[in-house]
Amino acid sequence: MRTGRTCKGVENASLAFSMLLTINQVLTGYTVVDLPRIAILGGSGYTGGELLRILSMHSEAEVIVATSREYKGKPVYYAHPGLHGVYRGLKFSEVNIDKILEADVVFNALPHGLGAELTGAAVDSGLYVVDLSADYRLRDLDVYEKWYGKHPRPDLVGRSAYGLPEVNREEIRNSKFVSSPGCNATASILASAPLAAHGLIGDYLIADVKAGSSEGGSKPSRGSHHPEREGSVRPYSPGGHRHQAEVEQELARIAGRPVRVSLVPHVVPAVRGALASVHTFLESVDPERVASAYTKFYLRERFVRLSRFSPVKYPDVKNVVGSNFADVGYAVDPYTNRVSGFAAIDNLVKGAAGQAVQNMNIMLGLPEDEGLRSPPLRP
Amino acid sequence: MRTGRTCKGVENASLAFSMLLTINQVLTGYTVVDLPRIAILGGSGYTGGELLRILSMHSEAEVIVATSREYKGKPVYYAHPGLHGVYRGLKFSEVNIDKILEADVVFNALPHGLGAELTGAAVDSGLYVVDLSADYRLRDLDVYEKWYGKHPRPDLVGRSAYGLPEVNREEIRNSKFVSSPGCNATASILASAPLAAHGLIGDYLIADVKAGSSEGGSKPSRGSHHPEREGSVRPYSPGGHRHQAEVEQELARIAGRPVRVSLVPHVVPAVRGALASVHTFLESVDPERVASAYTKFYLRERFVRLSRFSPVKYPDVKNVVGSNFADVGYAVDPYTNRVSGFAAIDNLVKGAAGQAVQNMNIMLGLPEDEGLRSPPLRP
Amino acid sequence: MRTGRTCKGVENASLAFSMLLTINQVLTGYTVVDLPRIAILGGSGYTGGELLRILSMHSEAEVIVATSREYKGKPVYYAHPGLHGVYRGLKFSEVNIDKILEADVVFNALPHGLGAELTGAAVDSGLYVVDLSADYRLRDLDVYEKWYGKHPRPDLVGRSAYGLPEVNREEIRNSKFVSSPGCNATASILASAPLAAHGLIGDYLIADVKAGSSEGGSKPSRGSHHPEREGSVRPYSPGGHRHQAEVEQELARIAGRPVRVSLVPHVVPAVRGALASVHTFLESVDPERVASAYTKFYLRERFVRLSRFSPVKYPDVKNVVGSNFADVGYAVDPYTNRVSGFAAIDNLVKGAAGQAVQNMNIMLGLPEDEGLRSPPLRP
Amino acid sequence: MRTGRTCKGVENASLAFSMLLTINQVLTGYTVVDLPRIAILGGSGYTGGELLRILSMHSEAEVIVATSREYKGKPVYYAHPGLHGVYRGLKFSEVNIDKILEADVVFNALPHGLGAELTGAAVDSGLYVVDLSADYRLRDLDVYEKWYGKHPRPDLVGRSAYGLPEVNREEIRNSKFVSSPGCNATASILASAPLAAHGLIGDYLIADVKAGSSEGGSKPSRGSHHPEREGSVRPYSPGGHRHQAEVEQELARIAGRPVRVSLVPHVVPAVRGALASVHTFLESVDPERVASAYTKFYLRERFVRLSRFSPVKYPDVKNVVGSNFADVGYAVDPYTNRVSGFAAIDNLVKGAAGQAVQNMNIMLGLPEDEGLRSPPLRP
Repeated sequence: MRTGRTCKGVENASLAFSMLLTINQVLTGYTVVDLPRIAILGGSGYTGGELLRILSMHSEAEVIVATSREYKGKPVYYAHPGLHGVYRGLKFSEVNIDKILEADVVFNALPHGLGAELTGAAVDSGLYVVDLSADYRLRDLDVYEKWYGKHPRPDLVGRSAYGLPEVNREEIRNSKFVSSPGCNATASILASAPLAAHGLIGDYLIADVKAGSSEGGSKPSRGSHHPEREGSVRPYSPGGHRHQAEVEQELARIAGRPVRVSLVPHVVPAVRGALASVHTFLESVDPERVASAYTKFYLRERFVRLSRFSPVKYPDVKNVVGSNFADVGYAVDPYTNRVSGFAAIDNLVKGAAGQAVQNMNIMLGLPEDEGLRSPPLRP
Repeated sequence: MRTGRTCKGVENASLAFSMLLTINQVLTGYTVVDLPRIAILGGSGYTGGELLRILSMHSEAEVIVATSREYKGKPVYYAHPGLHGVYRGLKFSEVNIDKILEADVVFNALPHGLGAELTGAAVDSGLYVVDLSADYRLRDLDVYEKWYGKHPRPDLVGRSAYGLPEVNREEIRNSKFVSSPGCNATASILASAPLAAHGLIGDYLIADVKAGSSEGGSKPSRGSHHPEREGSVRPYSPGGHRHQAEVEQELARIAGRPVRVSLVPHVVPAVRGALASVHTFLESVDPERVASAYTKFYLRERFVRLSRFSPVKYPDVKNVVGSNFADVGYAVDPYTNRVSGFAAIDNLVKGAAGQAVQNMNIMLGLPEDEGLRSPPLRP
Repeated sequence: MRTGRTCKGVENASLAFSMLLTINQVLTGYTVVDLPRIAILGGSGYTGGELLRILSMHSEAEVIVATSREYKGKPVYYAHPGLHGVYRGLKFSEVNIDKILEADVVFNALPHGLGAELTGAAVDSGLYVVDLSADYRLRDLDVYEKWYGKHPRPDLVGRSAYGLPEVNREEIRNSKFVSSPGCNATASILASAPLAAHGLIGDYLIADVKAGSSEGGSKPSRGSHHPEREGSVRPYSPGGHRHQAEVEQELARIAGRPVRVSLVPHVVPAVRGALASVHTFLESVDPERVASAYTKFYLRERFVRLSRFSPVKYPDVKNVVGSNFADVGYAVDPYTNRVSGFAAIDNLVKGAAGQAVQNMNIMLGLPEDEGLRSPPLRP
Repeated sequence: MRTGRTCKGVENASLAFSMLLTINQVLTGYTVVDLPRIAILGGSGYTGGELLRILSMHSEAEVIVATSREYKGKPVYYAHPGLHGVYRGLKFSEVNIDKILEADVVFNALPHGLGAELTGAAVDSGLYVVDLSADYRLRDLDVYEKWYGKHPRPDLVGRSAYGLPEVNREEIRNSKFVSSPGCNATASILASAPLAAHGLIGDYLIADVKAGSSEGGSKPSRGSHHPEREGSVRPYSPGGHRHQAEVEQELARIAGRPVRVSLVPHVVPAVRGALASVHTFLESVDPERVASAYTKFYLRERFVRLSRFSPVKYPDVKNVVGSNFADVGYAVDPYTNRVSGFAAIDNLVKGAAGQAVQNMNIMLGLPEDEGLRSPPLRP
C-alpha cells in the first residue's frame, strides 16, 4: 500500500542479516557491529544542519564529529535549535584531522576552498568522501581555473564522481569520492537531462533558476535581512554564474556533444526550494517526443516524480519541501517551437544534504533512500 | 549519541519479539502478522493529510481507508500533492461504515459534528478511536451544549480520555477512546499546566494564541486568500472562543480547583505553527518557584523541550515545525508580578495529527514516538 | 531637492491657470470648475481597488461610479478595507450604462470579455476610455481570434492606442481610447524594448516572468489558498501564454521587424510585484552597446529607473512596490553571448492601475505623474 | 466624495494665502517663501527612510540634512533603494551641529541615547524638535533611570510633550519639543485609552503585542536573517519591557489614577505592522459601555478608524500598512468578564515616522494629515 517501507519486500539478504545483528543489539543492549562513523566538516551552516537532521533518521550511520569554529564546544542545537533534544551528546568541535580520519565517511559542507585540503587528506586515507563544495565538481582543471582560480589539490581534480545519481549512478557506485552538486546545478540538470539525452536541445539552453533564501547560507547580511529579503524578487550574478560550467559539463556528457548553457539564478521570497526553468528553441518540436523523453529518462527513479497531470501538472517547490524528491515536468510552446523543462527541489535536501546522503548510500551499498523516506512537509 | 533511535537500548522484550516477526517478513517476503489497520475519516483536509504523512513513517500501522467526499476515487496525492509517490495504491473512498469497521483504529478528522455518529459506532464496536474533532472533548454535557448545542450521542459524552498525554497519559493508556485536542487548547494547556499544578495561577488566566493559516483548514475563503492573508495579524472570535471551555476543564483538573481562563486566538502570517502566550497576575511571585514548576512538570516528557537558555530562551514556532515537539518556556515580570507561560507547537502535528498518533501509540502500547521521530524542519 | 513636486518649476501656464481656479474654490468654498468624472467598471477587484487608491491621491479626478455586482450598495471599503475612511460617500453600484456615460473617463477593470461592449459604448459616445482588459490590446483581429476567439466588437479592434507610454506616448496622447497592458506584458516589453530598438534580439527571446499572488485577482481558489500559495514557486500556462502575442506585436513595432517571443509566467510567494527576465542569444555581444541601448531608451522617462550600480545593480520588485516605477536593468554573459534584460514592477500599479492613470493623464494633458507620486513602500 | 482632499472645502484663510504664495512661485519660477527646513538625525535606518518617504509627499517641508555615519556622502537611495529618483540631490552627511541648527525642525531617529545631546542642543536653540527615541518619553527622571540608567540631559526630562496626538493633542500644539512614541507604546495606548478614560481597566492590564520584522531596525543579525526570521513567532523581553513604563505613565494620566500595565511583545512573520491586544478582567462588564467608550473616545480622530462591523469587525495590520491609520477595536468575553482592546498600526508610520510628522504638523499649525494622506497599500 505504502512505498518506502523498510521491512516490506526483501531487497537482498544483507538486510535480513543486518536485522539479525540489530536484534542482537536489542537483546544484549549494546552495539556489536559498528555503524558507519560520520564526520561533518562545516556542521553549523544550513547544509551541516540538514546533514545532521537527515542522519538522525538514518539507521545505518552515526555522526561522531561535526566541526564548527564559531560554535566549538557547544551542543549542536546551538546552531540548529530544531535539533534540541535530537542529538544529546554531540558537540561541535574544531577541525582535528586525526579525529576526522577516525570516521568512515566524511561530508565536506564547508564553503568553496576551505575544505579542499581536508577532503584531499580523507581521500588519500581511503575514506569515503562526499564533498558538497564546488572544489572537485569540474572534471577539467582548465575549466576550474577559469572560474575559480588556482586549485589547492590539482592532482585530485577529475578523480571524483559527479554526485547526481539520476544521471551518474554507476560511476558513484564504483567510487569512494563523490562531488555532490549544489541546488542550482541539480535543478538545472534534472530539468534538462532528458532533453540532452534525446537531442532536444537547440543552439542554446537558458536555465532560469528561482531559489529561496536558505540557498544563501546561514550568515546574516544586508541582502538577507528579513525586512529586505521578504518580498524580494531579483536576479543575481546574471552575467555568468559559476555553476553553469558544471551544468554544461554534465549535459555534454549526457548528450554526447557540447551543449551551450547559460544560467541565471534569481532570489524569490521562499525559505526553502529551488525551481529551474530551462528553455530552448528548436526548428520544430513534437510534443509526444518530449513527453517520451522525460518519461523514459526517469522511469525507475526513486526520487524523481514526473508532473504531468492535474493537480500537479507542473512542478512546484511547495510539493517537495523537506524531502529528497525532485519534481520534474515539461511544456512545449507550439507557436515558437520552444521546449521548457522544469525541476523543483528542496535546495537543502535534494540540492545539498539529502543528495549527499543519497550518494553515501549508493557508495556503501545501502538502500538508496535510507534516511530519506520522510515525505515532503506540505502545506 | 542520538535520541529517538528505535534499535539502540532495548525498552522491553516486545520490541525484540516484533523484530523477529519482522525478520520473518523480510526472509519470507510477505507479512505474517498484520499491522494495525487504520481508517481515517476526513482524509482530504490538512489534518487528514498530516495523518497520512505521519503514518507513512510509522512502522506499525497500515492505512486501509481514507474517506473524502470531494476526492472519492482519486489517489490521495490529488488532495496532498506532497504524498505523490508515497502512497501508491491508496485512493479516497466515500464513507462506508462496514469498511471502516474492518479497521483496528479509527481517526476522525472530520469537522465538528460530521463524524460524531461514525465515531460512536466505532466505539460501540470496540475499535480504538482517536477523535480529533471537538465532539467529545468536553466531559460535561451541559458545558458542551452551552458552547455547541445539541449532541448526537450524549451517552458517549464523558466517556473518552482527553488526549493530551503530557497531562493525562494514564487515562489514555487505559482507554480505547481518546478525544485529541486541537492546537489552541494543546498550546494553551501545555503553556499553563505547570502553573496550574503548582498554584501559580491568579484570579484569571488569559491565553493569547497566535496561529498560522493552516489552522483554518483546507477550504479556500476570502480570509484565507493569499493576497489577503499574507501579512495579516488580527484576532478572531475574541469574544469568547469555544476552546476555552476545554482549557478551563483540564486546568481545573490539574489544579484541583476551578480556574478562570479566557482564550483569544489571533492569525499571524505563518503557514504552520501556533504559539500560546498565557499571562496571569499574582500577589507576589518567586522566579525560582516558577522555574521549578516547569522543570518538574516536564522532566521526563519525550515531546516537551524546555526553553530556558540562549539561543532558545523562549519558545519559537520556527523550532518545532514539522515535528511533534512542544517547546515550552516561561517569564516573570517582577514589576507587576506577572507570570507568563509560552508553548510553541506545529498546529498540524502536536496540535492535531501528531498528537493523535501519539495517543494511538499509547493506547496500543507502542513506543510513544513511533512515526514521530523526524526532527523539525528548520530553517 | 526633491523631484515630483507639483509647484516648483513651472511647466506651463495652464498650471498657474488651474491654480487660480483652485484658489477660487478655496475662497468661495465650492467648486467652480468640474474635475474629470471617473467611472470604474469592475471596482471590487484588485485593479479596481488600486484605481480607487490612486485616484484618491489624484487632484484632478473625481470617482462618480464604481461598479460591482457582488458588493452593490455597499461602501467601497467593504471590498477594500484599506480604503475605510478614505472614500466616505462612494458606494458600489450595478452597471448602469446611462450613469457610466455621465463620466468623462471610463476605466474598464472587468475580466476579459465582460466589459467589451460597455467600453465600446463609451468609445462610441466619445468618452475617454482606458481599458485594462485584454479586449482591445491586439491590433490584428486574426491574431486576437487565434488566442481569444470571437470578438464582440470587431469594428473597434485596432482602434485603441497600446497604453505603454514609454514606447507609445505620442499615440496615447492623440487618442481617446487606450488599451492598458497587463503586468506580464508591461514587464516583458520594458525589459526588452531597448534591445528591440537597437537590433540586439537574436532568433528568439524568452520572457521568464515571476509574479506575486495579487496577479491572480481577488477571487479565492485552491491555488490561491494561503497555506497552498505561500512558499509556492511554479510555472503556469508554460505552453504558450496569451500575453506573448502582445509582447511580440509591440516589440516588432519597436524593432521594425518580426521578433519571436515566448513567454512563461511563474508564481512566486510575494503578494505584489512582477519581475520579467528576458534572455536572448546573439552571435557576439558588446557590453557597451547593450548599456548604451538601455541608457538611451529610458533617458527621459519619469517612471523608469535604470539599475546599474550598487546597491541597486539589478532590478528588484522590492524596490518598486506601491509605486508606478519600473526598475530596468540588463546583463551580458560573455561565455555564451547571452543578453538579459530585467524589469521589476508592482503588478497592480505600473502593471495595471497606475499605468492606466498614467495613460489618462497623458490623454487629458495633465502632468504624467499626477496621483502617482507616492514613493515605493520599502521595506 | 473623497476625504483628505487639500483643495475642497476651505479650512482657514491661511491656506488660500499659502496658495497665493505658491502661485507666485509658479509664475516666477523660484521660491519666495521658505518651506520649513528639516534635519533628520539617523537618516539611514528604517525610521529615517520612512521620514524621507513621507516628507517627499509633504508640501510644506524641505529636507536639508539627513545624517548617516555609514552612508555619508552617498545619495539617500543607497540606504533606501525605494527612494531612487525621488530625492535627486540629497546626500547623507555626518553629524554637523551647525548645519543641523540651520533647520527649523529636527527629527531624531537615532537609537536610544545617541542623539540625546543633539536634540538637547536643538531644544536649547529654540528649534522644533520631534524626538523618536526613548530619550525623553518618560516624564519622571527616577522612572527613567530605573529602566535606562543615567540620563545625559536630566534637565530636559519632563520638558517634552508625549507625542501621541489622540491622547495629548493640546500639549503637543503648545510645545516645540515632542517625544514621539514607538510602535509598541502607540499600539498599546491606543488600544486601551478608551478603557482607561472610562474606568474599564481592572487590577491589571496585559498588553500582548505582535510586531513585524522592520520593528527590529535595519541592522542584520542572526535573529533577523531571513531564513531564521520567516515563519518565526516568539516572545521577546517577556520579563518586563522598557516600553511598559510609558504605557503606564500615559494610561495613568488618562485614567486619573495609577494603572498596572504589563507589556509582552512578540515577533511575527510580517515585515510591517504591529497589533496590540490588551486584556483586562472586571467584576462585571457591560458591552454597551465598552462600545460607547471607544466610540466617544475616537469620534473626531482623523487617523483612528473604529473596527466594529464586517468585513472589518476587528483590526488587522493588513488594513493599515503604508498609512498613518490606527485601526482600533474591542471585544467582551461575557464568560469571564474579560474586556479586550485591539489596535493595528504600521509600526514605521503611525508607530514611528508618520506619527512624528503628524506631531510636526500639529506644532507648526499645518493640516494634521499633510504628507500623510496616501491610503494603506492593500493587498
